[in-house]
Amino acid sequence: MSGLTLYHHKGACSLAPLIALEESGLDYSVEIINLATDRPGYLKVNPAGKVPALVLDGELLTENLAILYRIASLAPAAGLLPSGLEETSRTLSLMAWFGSTVHILRRQIRMPLRFTPDADAQAKLVEAGRPKMWEALLEMEARLGEREWFGGRAFGVADGYALVFYGWGLNDGFPMEELEKLTTWKDRMLSRPAVLHAIRNDAGVLHDKLEAAA
Amino acid sequence: MSGLTLYHHKGACSLAPLIALEESGLDYSVEIINLATDRPGYLKVNPAGKVPALVLDGELLTENLAILYRIASLAPAAGLLPSGLEETSRTLSLMAWFGSTVHILRRQIRMPLRFTPDADAQAKLVEAGRPKMWEALLEMEARLGEREWFGGRAFGVADGYALVFYGWGLNDGFPMEELEKLTTWKDRMLSRPAVLHAIRNDAGVLHDKLEAAA
Ligand SMILES: N[C@@H](CCC(=O)N[C@@H](CS)C(=O)NCC(=O)O)C(=O)O
Ligand SMILES: N[C@@H](CCC(=O)N[C@@H](CS)C(=O)NCC(=O)O)C(=O)O
Repeated sequence: MSGLTLYHHKGACSLAPLIALEESGLDYSVEIINLATDRPGYLKVNPAGKVPALVLDGELLTENLAILYRIASLAPAAGLLPSGLEETSRTLSLMAWFGSTVHILRRQIRMPLRFTPDADAQAKLVEAGRPKMWEALLEMEARLGEREWFGGRAFGVADGYALVFYGWGLNDGFPMEELEKLTTWKDRMLSRPAVLHAIRNDAGVLHDKLEAAA
Repeated sequence: MSGLTLYHHKGACSLAPLIALEESGLDYSVEIINLATDRPGYLKVNPAGKVPALVLDGELLTENLAILYRIASLAPAAGLLPSGLEETSRTLSLMAWFGSTVHILRRQIRMPLRFTPDADAQAKLVEAGRPKMWEALLEMEARLGEREWFGGRAFGVADGYALVFYGWGLNDGFPMEELEKLTTWKDRMLSRPAVLHAIRNDAGVLHDKLEAAA
Protein backbone atom coordinates (compact mmCIF):
# COMPACT_ATOMS: atom_id res chain seq x y z
CA MET A 1 0.00 0.00 0.00
CA SER A 2 2.12 2.88 -1.22
CA GLY A 3 1.05 6.48 -1.69
CA LEU A 4 -0.26 7.03 1.84
CA THR A 5 0.73 10.40 3.31
CA LEU A 6 -0.42 11.86 6.60
CA TYR A 7 -0.22 15.60 7.24
CA HIS A 8 0.56 16.24 10.89
CA HIS A 9 1.12 19.32 13.03
CA LYS A 10 3.14 18.61 16.16
CA GLY A 11 1.01 18.29 19.25
CA ALA A 12 -2.23 18.25 17.25
CA CYS A 13 -5.01 15.66 17.07
CA SER A 14 -3.32 14.21 13.99
CA LEU A 15 -1.26 12.21 16.49
CA ALA A 16 -4.23 9.81 16.48
CA PRO A 17 -3.81 8.67 12.85
CA LEU A 18 -0.02 8.79 13.29
CA ILE A 19 -0.38 6.14 15.98
CA ALA A 20 -2.86 4.17 13.87
CA LEU A 21 -0.53 4.17 10.85
CA GLU A 22 2.41 3.03 12.95
CA GLU A 23 0.32 0.23 14.50
CA SER A 24 -1.15 -0.77 11.13
CA GLY A 25 2.07 -1.98 9.56
CA LEU A 26 1.16 -0.08 6.37
CA ASP A 27 3.79 1.81 4.40
CA TYR A 28 3.22 5.52 4.88
CA SER A 29 4.95 8.84 5.05
CA VAL A 30 4.37 11.80 7.33
CA GLU A 31 4.54 15.42 6.32
CA ILE A 32 5.09 17.49 9.41
CA ILE A 33 3.71 20.95 8.78
CA ASN A 34 3.50 24.01 10.94
CA LEU A 35 -0.02 25.39 10.65
CA ALA A 36 1.21 28.82 11.72
CA THR A 37 3.81 29.23 8.96
CA ASP A 38 3.02 26.63 6.25
CA ARG A 39 -0.65 27.49 5.86
CA PRO A 40 -0.54 28.95 2.30
CA GLY A 41 1.11 25.86 0.85
CA TYR A 42 -0.95 23.49 2.96
CA LEU A 43 -4.21 24.99 1.67
CA LYS A 44 -3.32 23.45 -1.70
CA VAL A 45 -3.34 20.02 -0.05
CA ASN A 46 -6.34 20.58 2.23
CA PRO A 47 -8.44 23.68 1.46
CA ALA A 48 -9.90 23.49 5.00
CA GLY A 49 -6.42 24.12 6.40
CA LYS A 50 -6.79 21.60 9.23
CA VAL A 51 -4.98 18.50 10.28
CA PRO A 52 -5.21 15.56 10.05
CA ALA A 53 -5.39 15.06 6.31
CA LEU A 54 -4.62 11.71 4.72
CA VAL A 55 -3.72 11.64 1.04
CA LEU A 56 -4.16 8.24 -0.63
CA ASP A 57 -2.75 8.18 -4.15
CA GLY A 58 -3.97 11.74 -4.67
CA GLU A 59 -7.31 11.31 -2.90
CA LEU A 60 -7.81 13.62 0.10
CA LEU A 61 -9.53 12.31 3.22
CA THR A 62 -10.20 14.52 6.25
CA GLU A 63 -11.70 14.08 9.75
CA ASN A 64 -10.02 11.91 12.35
CA LEU A 65 -12.87 9.43 12.61
CA ALA A 66 -12.95 8.73 8.87
CA ILE A 67 -9.17 8.58 8.55
CA LEU A 68 -8.95 6.14 11.47
CA TYR A 69 -11.71 3.98 9.98
CA ARG A 70 -9.91 3.96 6.65
CA ILE A 71 -6.51 3.04 8.11
CA ALA A 72 -8.06 0.24 10.20
CA SER A 73 -9.91 -1.09 7.16
CA LEU A 74 -6.80 -1.02 4.96
CA ALA A 75 -4.96 -3.19 7.50
CA PRO A 76 -7.51 -5.72 8.76
CA ALA A 77 -4.82 -8.04 10.10
CA ALA A 78 -3.77 -5.40 12.62
CA GLY A 79 -7.23 -5.59 14.23
CA LEU A 80 -7.49 -1.84 14.82
CA LEU A 81 -11.29 -1.90 14.67
CA PRO A 82 -13.19 -4.57 16.58
CA SER A 83 -14.95 -7.15 14.46
CA GLY A 84 -18.71 -7.30 14.65
CA LEU A 85 -21.27 -4.60 14.03
CA GLU A 86 -22.14 -3.94 17.66
CA GLU A 87 -18.54 -3.30 18.72
CA THR A 88 -17.70 -1.33 15.58
CA SER A 89 -20.71 0.94 16.14
CA ARG A 90 -19.66 1.52 19.74
CA THR A 91 -16.18 2.51 18.63
CA LEU A 92 -17.61 4.89 16.05
CA SER A 93 -19.90 6.33 18.73
CA LEU A 94 -16.95 6.88 21.05
CA MET A 95 -14.89 8.53 18.32
CA ALA A 96 -17.85 10.70 17.23
CA TRP A 97 -18.15 11.82 20.87
CA PHE A 98 -14.41 12.60 20.95
CA GLY A 99 -14.75 14.72 17.80
CA SER A 100 -18.03 16.49 18.56
CA THR A 101 -17.70 16.99 22.32
CA VAL A 102 -14.25 16.46 23.84
CA HIS A 103 -12.32 18.11 21.01
CA ILE A 104 -14.77 21.05 20.92
CA LEU A 105 -14.33 21.68 24.65
CA ARG A 106 -10.58 21.66 24.16
CA ARG A 107 -10.94 24.20 21.35
CA GLN A 108 -13.11 26.33 23.65
CA ILE A 109 -10.40 26.54 26.32
CA ARG A 110 -7.37 26.77 24.02
CA MET A 111 -8.63 28.43 20.83
CA PRO A 112 -11.57 30.58 21.97
CA LEU A 113 -10.72 32.90 19.06
CA ARG A 114 -12.26 30.21 16.86
CA PHE A 115 -15.65 31.11 18.43
CA THR A 116 -15.47 34.90 18.72
CA PRO A 117 -12.94 37.70 18.16
CA ASP A 118 -14.16 39.47 21.33
CA ALA A 119 -11.50 39.23 24.06
CA ASP A 120 -13.91 39.43 27.01
CA ALA A 121 -16.15 36.76 25.54
CA GLN A 122 -13.07 34.60 24.94
CA ALA A 123 -12.16 34.87 28.63
CA LYS A 124 -15.69 33.76 29.55
CA LEU A 125 -15.42 30.80 27.21
CA VAL A 126 -12.20 29.65 28.86
CA GLU A 127 -13.64 30.15 32.34
CA ALA A 128 -16.80 28.15 31.62
CA GLY A 129 -15.01 25.59 29.47
CA ARG A 130 -12.35 24.39 31.92
CA PRO A 131 -14.72 22.65 34.38
CA LYS A 132 -16.54 21.11 31.42
CA MET A 133 -13.29 19.84 29.97
CA TRP A 134 -12.51 18.22 33.30
CA GLU A 135 -15.99 16.63 33.31
CA ALA A 136 -15.28 15.25 29.85
CA LEU A 137 -12.01 13.76 31.08
CA LEU A 138 -13.89 12.21 34.02
CA GLU A 139 -16.36 10.79 31.53
CA MET A 140 -13.49 9.29 29.57
CA GLU A 141 -12.31 7.62 32.78
CA ALA A 142 -15.84 6.27 33.33
CA ARG A 143 -16.17 5.09 29.74
CA LEU A 144 -12.90 3.18 29.96
CA GLY A 145 -14.12 1.66 33.20
CA GLU A 146 -12.57 -1.72 33.87
CA ARG A 147 -11.61 -2.32 30.26
CA GLU A 148 -8.01 -2.38 29.10
CA TRP A 149 -8.61 -0.55 25.84
CA PHE A 150 -11.02 2.02 24.43
CA GLY A 151 -11.09 0.16 21.15
CA GLY A 152 -12.89 -2.87 22.54
CA ARG A 153 -11.29 -6.13 23.62
CA ALA A 154 -7.95 -5.16 22.09
CA PHE A 155 -5.99 -2.03 21.33
CA GLY A 156 -7.66 -0.09 18.51
CA VAL A 157 -7.79 3.22 16.68
CA ALA A 158 -9.93 4.78 19.42
CA ASP A 159 -7.01 4.35 21.84
CA GLY A 160 -4.70 6.52 19.77
CA TYR A 161 -7.43 9.16 19.56
CA ALA A 162 -7.97 9.02 23.34
CA LEU A 163 -4.24 9.48 23.98
CA VAL A 164 -4.44 12.91 22.31
CA PHE A 165 -6.85 14.06 25.01
CA TYR A 166 -4.72 12.58 27.78
CA GLY A 167 -1.72 14.50 26.45
CA TRP A 168 -3.71 17.69 26.10
CA GLY A 169 -5.00 17.23 29.65
CA LEU A 170 -1.41 17.14 30.94
CA ASN A 171 -0.50 20.09 28.79
CA ASP A 172 -3.48 22.13 30.01
CA GLY A 173 -2.64 21.53 33.68
CA PHE A 174 -5.44 19.13 34.63
CA PRO A 175 -4.59 16.68 37.44
CA MET A 176 -4.52 13.69 35.14
CA GLU A 177 -2.94 11.40 37.73
CA GLU A 178 -6.24 11.60 39.67
CA LEU A 179 -7.80 9.67 36.80
CA GLU A 180 -6.43 6.34 37.90
CA LYS A 181 -7.85 4.07 35.24
CA LEU A 182 -6.94 6.46 32.48
CA THR A 183 -3.43 6.82 33.87
CA THR A 184 -2.91 3.04 34.05
CA TRP A 185 -4.22 2.84 30.47
CA LYS A 186 -1.82 5.61 29.41
CA ASP A 187 1.10 3.60 30.82
CA ARG A 188 -0.22 0.56 28.93
CA MET A 189 -0.25 2.68 25.79
CA LEU A 190 3.31 3.89 26.33
CA SER A 191 4.53 0.31 26.63
CA ARG A 192 3.60 -0.29 22.96
CA PRO A 193 6.59 0.22 20.67
CA ALA A 194 4.42 1.59 17.84
CA VAL A 195 2.80 4.16 20.12
CA LEU A 196 6.18 5.27 21.47
CA HIS A 197 7.52 5.49 17.93
CA ALA A 198 4.59 7.67 16.85
CA ILE A 199 5.00 9.95 19.87
CA ARG A 200 8.69 10.36 19.14
CA ASN A 201 7.83 11.08 15.52
CA ASP A 202 5.49 13.77 16.82
CA ALA A 203 8.27 15.26 18.94
CA GLY A 204 5.91 18.06 19.83
CA VAL A 205 4.18 19.14 22.97
CA LEU A 206 2.38 15.81 23.38
CA HIS A 207 5.68 14.00 23.11
CA ASP A 208 7.22 16.07 25.87
CA LYS A 209 4.24 15.78 28.17
CA LEU A 210 3.61 12.10 27.62
CA GLU A 211 7.28 11.17 27.93
CA ALA A 212 7.52 13.17 31.14
CA ALA A 213 4.46 11.35 32.46
CA ALA A 214 5.85 7.93 31.56
CA MET B 1 -35.43 -6.94 13.62
CA SER B 2 -37.59 -6.14 16.62
CA GLY B 3 -36.58 -4.19 19.69
CA LEU B 4 -35.32 -1.08 17.88
CA THR B 5 -36.41 2.18 19.50
CA LEU B 6 -35.35 5.69 18.54
CA TYR B 7 -35.65 8.56 21.00
CA HIS B 8 -36.50 11.75 19.16
CA HIS B 9 -37.17 15.35 20.16
CA LYS B 10 -39.21 17.25 17.58
CA GLY B 11 -37.12 19.50 15.39
CA ALA B 12 -33.84 18.01 16.67
CA CYS B 13 -31.01 16.29 14.84
CA SER B 14 -32.62 12.95 15.66
CA LEU B 15 -34.66 13.54 12.50
CA ALA B 16 -31.63 12.09 10.68
CA PRO B 17 -31.97 8.56 12.13
CA LEU B 18 -35.75 8.85 11.90
CA ILE B 19 -35.36 9.24 8.14
CA ALA B 20 -32.80 6.43 8.01
CA LEU B 21 -35.09 4.05 9.91
CA GLU B 22 -38.01 4.84 7.66
CA GLU B 23 -35.88 4.31 4.55
CA SER B 24 -34.34 1.12 5.94
CA GLY B 25 -37.50 -0.95 5.96
CA LEU B 26 -36.60 -2.16 9.48
CA ASP B 27 -39.26 -2.53 12.16
CA TYR B 28 -38.80 0.20 14.71
CA SER B 29 -40.62 2.41 17.14
CA VAL B 30 -40.13 6.08 17.97
CA GLU B 31 -40.40 7.61 21.40
CA ILE B 32 -41.05 11.28 21.01
CA ILE B 33 -39.76 13.04 24.08
CA ASN B 34 -39.66 16.68 25.07
CA LEU B 35 -36.16 17.43 26.35
CA ALA B 36 -37.50 20.41 28.31
CA THR B 37 -40.08 18.47 30.34
CA ASP B 38 -39.18 14.75 30.09
CA ARG B 39 -35.54 15.09 31.05
CA PRO B 40 -35.62 13.30 34.44
CA GLY B 41 -37.20 10.16 32.96
CA TYR B 42 -35.08 10.33 29.82
CA LEU B 43 -31.84 10.38 31.82
CA LYS B 44 -32.65 6.78 32.80
CA VAL B 45 -32.55 5.86 29.10
CA ASN B 46 -29.61 8.05 28.11
CA PRO B 47 -27.57 9.50 31.00
CA ALA B 48 -26.16 12.14 28.62
CA GLY B 49 -29.68 13.52 28.16
CA LYS B 50 -29.28 14.10 24.44
CA VAL B 51 -31.02 12.88 21.33
CA PRO B 52 -30.71 10.84 19.24
CA ALA B 53 -30.45 7.64 21.24
CA LEU B 54 -31.12 4.26 19.68
CA VAL B 55 -31.97 1.35 21.96
CA LEU B 56 -31.41 -2.08 20.43
CA ASP B 57 -32.78 -4.86 22.61
CA GLY B 58 -31.64 -2.97 25.68
CA GLU B 59 -28.31 -1.79 24.28
CA LEU B 60 -27.91 2.01 24.13
CA LEU B 61 -26.21 3.62 21.15
CA THR B 62 -25.63 7.38 20.92
CA GLU B 63 -24.16 9.83 18.37
CA ASN B 64 -25.82 10.41 15.02
CA LEU B 65 -22.92 9.10 12.98
CA ALA B 66 -22.75 5.77 14.83
CA ILE B 67 -26.54 5.33 14.87
CA LEU B 68 -26.72 6.02 11.13
CA TYR B 69 -23.89 3.56 10.44
CA ARG B 70 -25.65 0.93 12.55
CA ILE B 71 -29.03 1.37 10.86
CA ALA B 72 -27.45 1.24 7.40
CA SER B 73 -25.51 -1.90 8.33
CA LEU B 74 -28.60 -3.63 9.75
CA ALA B 75 -30.41 -3.13 6.44
CA PRO B 76 -27.81 -3.71 3.72
CA ALA B 77 -30.48 -4.24 1.05
CA ALA B 78 -31.61 -0.61 1.46
CA GLY B 79 -28.18 0.60 0.33
CA LEU B 80 -28.01 3.44 2.83
CA LEU B 81 -24.21 3.40 2.93
CA PRO B 82 -22.26 3.21 -0.31
CA SER B 83 -20.42 -0.02 -0.92
CA GLY B 84 -16.65 0.13 -1.10
CA LEU B 85 -14.16 1.44 1.40
CA GLU B 86 -13.34 4.68 -0.41
CA GLU B 87 -16.98 5.80 -0.64
CA THR B 88 -17.83 4.64 2.88
CA SER B 89 -14.88 6.59 4.29
CA ARG B 90 -15.99 9.70 2.42
CA THR B 91 -19.50 9.39 3.84
CA LEU B 92 -18.09 8.96 7.35
CA SER B 93 -15.88 12.00 6.77
CA LEU B 94 -18.87 14.07 5.68
CA MET B 95 -20.94 12.96 8.67
CA ALA B 96 -18.03 13.59 11.05
CA TRP B 97 -17.81 17.11 9.62
CA PHE B 98 -21.56 17.57 10.11
CA GLY B 99 -21.25 16.51 13.75
CA SER B 100 -18.04 18.31 14.66
CA THR B 101 -18.42 21.52 12.65
CA VAL B 102 -21.88 22.26 11.21
CA HIS B 103 -23.80 21.08 14.28
CA ILE B 104 -21.44 22.95 16.63
CA LEU B 105 -21.93 26.22 14.72
CA ARG B 106 -25.68 25.73 14.98
CA ARG B 107 -25.35 25.21 18.73
CA GLN B 108 -23.26 28.37 18.93
CA ILE B 109 -26.01 30.49 17.36
CA ARG B 110 -29.03 28.79 18.98
CA MET B 111 -27.79 27.42 22.31
CA PRO B 112 -24.91 29.75 23.27
CA LEU B 113 -25.78 28.97 26.89
CA ARG B 114 -24.13 25.59 26.27
CA PHE B 115 -20.79 27.47 25.98
CA THR B 116 -21.10 30.11 28.71
CA PRO B 117 -23.67 31.40 31.20
CA ASP B 118 -22.55 35.00 30.53
CA ALA B 119 -25.24 36.88 28.57
CA ASP B 120 -22.88 39.34 26.89
CA ALA B 121 -20.55 36.56 25.79
CA GLN B 122 -23.56 34.64 24.46
CA ALA B 123 -24.53 37.63 22.30
CA LYS B 124 -20.97 37.73 20.92
CA LEU B 125 -21.14 34.03 20.12
CA VAL B 126 -24.35 34.47 18.14
CA GLU B 127 -22.97 37.50 16.33
CA ALA B 128 -19.74 35.77 15.29
CA GLY B 129 -21.45 32.43 14.67
CA ARG B 130 -24.08 33.48 12.14
CA PRO B 131 -21.71 34.32 9.26
CA LYS B 132 -19.79 31.12 9.99
CA MET B 133 -22.99 29.09 9.91
CA TRP B 134 -23.77 30.60 6.52
CA GLU B 135 -20.26 29.69 5.34
CA ALA B 136 -20.87 26.13 6.47
CA LEU B 137 -24.13 26.03 4.48
CA LEU B 138 -22.24 27.35 1.44
CA GLU B 139 -19.70 24.60 1.97
CA MET B 140 -22.52 22.05 2.04
CA GLU B 141 -23.68 23.43 -1.30
CA ALA B 142 -20.13 23.09 -2.67
CA ARG B 143 -19.71 19.58 -1.27
CA LEU B 144 -22.94 18.43 -2.91
CA GLY B 145 -21.71 19.97 -6.15
CA GLU B 146 -23.17 18.30 -9.19
CA ARG B 147 -24.08 15.13 -7.36
CA GLU B 148 -27.66 14.10 -6.71
CA TRP B 149 -27.07 12.79 -3.20
CA PHE B 150 -24.70 13.40 -0.31
CA GLY B 151 -24.56 9.68 0.37
CA GLY B 152 -22.68 8.85 -2.81
CA ARG B 153 -24.21 7.57 -6.04
CA ALA B 154 -27.55 6.93 -4.36
CA PHE B 155 -29.59 8.28 -1.48
CA GLY B 156 -27.95 7.40 1.83
CA VAL B 157 -27.87 8.11 5.55
CA ALA B 158 -25.82 11.28 5.03
CA ASP B 159 -28.75 12.78 3.11
CA GLY B 160 -31.10 12.53 6.06
CA TYR B 161 -28.43 14.11 8.25
CA ALA B 162 -27.94 16.95 5.74
CA LEU B 163 -31.68 17.63 5.65
CA VAL B 164 -31.57 18.54 9.35
CA PHE B 165 -29.22 21.42 8.55
CA TYR B 166 -31.32 22.55 5.61
CA GLY B 167 -34.38 22.67 7.89
CA TRP B 168 -32.46 24.50 10.60
CA GLY B 169 -31.22 26.98 7.99
CA LEU B 170 -34.82 27.80 7.05
CA ASN B 171 -35.76 28.01 10.70
CA ASP B 172 -32.86 30.32 11.51
CA GLY B 173 -33.74 32.73 8.69
CA PHE B 174 -30.88 32.01 6.28
CA PRO B 175 -31.69 32.60 2.58
CA MET B 176 -31.66 28.90 1.75
CA GLU B 177 -33.20 29.40 -1.69
CA GLU B 178 -29.95 31.11 -2.73
CA LEU B 179 -28.29 27.72 -2.35
CA GLU B 180 -29.60 26.39 -5.65
CA LYS B 181 -28.07 22.94 -5.67
CA LEU B 182 -29.02 22.32 -2.08
CA THR B 183 -32.56 23.52 -2.74
CA THR B 184 -32.98 21.22 -5.75
CA TRP B 185 -31.62 18.36 -3.62
CA LYS B 186 -34.05 19.27 -0.82
CA ASP B 187 -36.95 18.98 -3.32
CA ARG B 188 -35.53 15.62 -4.43
CA MET B 189 -35.50 14.56 -0.79
CA LEU B 190 -39.11 15.65 -0.25
CA SER B 191 -40.24 13.57 -3.21
CA ARG B 192 -39.25 10.39 -1.33
CA PRO B 193 -42.22 8.88 0.51
CA ALA B 194 -40.06 7.64 3.40
CA VAL B 195 -38.53 11.08 3.93
CA LEU B 196 -41.96 12.72 3.88
CA HIS B 197 -43.27 10.11 6.30
CA ALA B 198 -40.40 10.76 8.70
CA ILE B 199 -40.89 14.52 8.52
CA ARG B 200 -44.59 14.10 9.27
CA ASN B 201 -43.69 11.81 12.16
CA ASP B 202 -41.45 14.59 13.40
CA ALA B 203 -44.27 17.10 13.20
CA GLY B 204 -42.00 19.65 14.79
CA VAL B 205 -40.35 22.80 13.61
CA LEU B 206 -38.47 21.02 10.81
CA HIS B 207 -41.73 19.55 9.58
CA ASP B 208 -43.35 22.97 9.39
CA LYS B 209 -40.39 24.64 7.72
CA LEU B 210 -39.66 21.87 5.25
CA GLU B 211 -43.30 21.40 4.31
CA ALA B 212 -43.66 25.14 3.78
CA ALA B 213 -40.57 25.09 1.55
CA ALA B 214 -41.86 22.15 -0.50
N1 LIG C 1 -13.19 17.52 13.25
C1 LIG C 1 -11.80 17.60 12.81
C2 LIG C 1 -11.07 18.61 13.63
C3 LIG C 1 -9.69 18.92 13.08
C4 LIG C 1 -9.03 20.05 13.86
O1 LIG C 1 -9.71 20.94 14.42
N2 LIG C 1 -7.68 20.04 13.88
C5 LIG C 1 -6.93 21.10 14.53
C6 LIG C 1 -5.69 20.55 15.18
S1 LIG C 1 -6.04 19.54 16.58
C7 LIG C 1 -6.51 22.12 13.48
O2 LIG C 1 -6.11 21.77 12.38
N3 LIG C 1 -6.60 23.40 13.83
C8 LIG C 1 -6.15 24.45 12.98
C9 LIG C 1 -7.21 25.43 12.66
O3 LIG C 1 -8.35 25.27 13.19
O4 LIG C 1 -6.96 26.32 11.88
C10 LIG C 1 -11.17 16.22 12.91
O5 LIG C 1 -11.56 15.43 13.78
O6 LIG C 1 -10.28 15.90 12.09
N1 LIG D 1 -22.84 14.76 18.81
C1 LIG D 1 -24.20 14.43 19.12
C2 LIG D 1 -25.00 15.69 19.37
C3 LIG D 1 -26.36 15.44 19.93
C4 LIG D 1 -27.07 16.74 20.32
O1 LIG D 1 -26.44 17.75 20.64
N2 LIG D 1 -28.42 16.71 20.27
C5 LIG D 1 -29.19 17.87 20.66
C6 LIG D 1 -30.44 17.98 19.80
S1 LIG D 1 -30.09 18.42 18.13
C7 LIG D 1 -29.64 17.70 22.11
O2 LIG D 1 -30.03 16.61 22.54
N3 LIG D 1 -29.59 18.78 22.87
C8 LIG D 1 -30.06 18.78 24.22
C9 LIG D 1 -29.00 19.19 25.17
O3 LIG D 1 -27.90 19.54 24.75
O4 LIG D 1 -29.30 19.16 26.38
C10 LIG D 1 -24.82 13.61 18.00
O5 LIG D 1 -24.41 13.78 16.84
O6 LIG D 1 -25.69 12.76 18.26
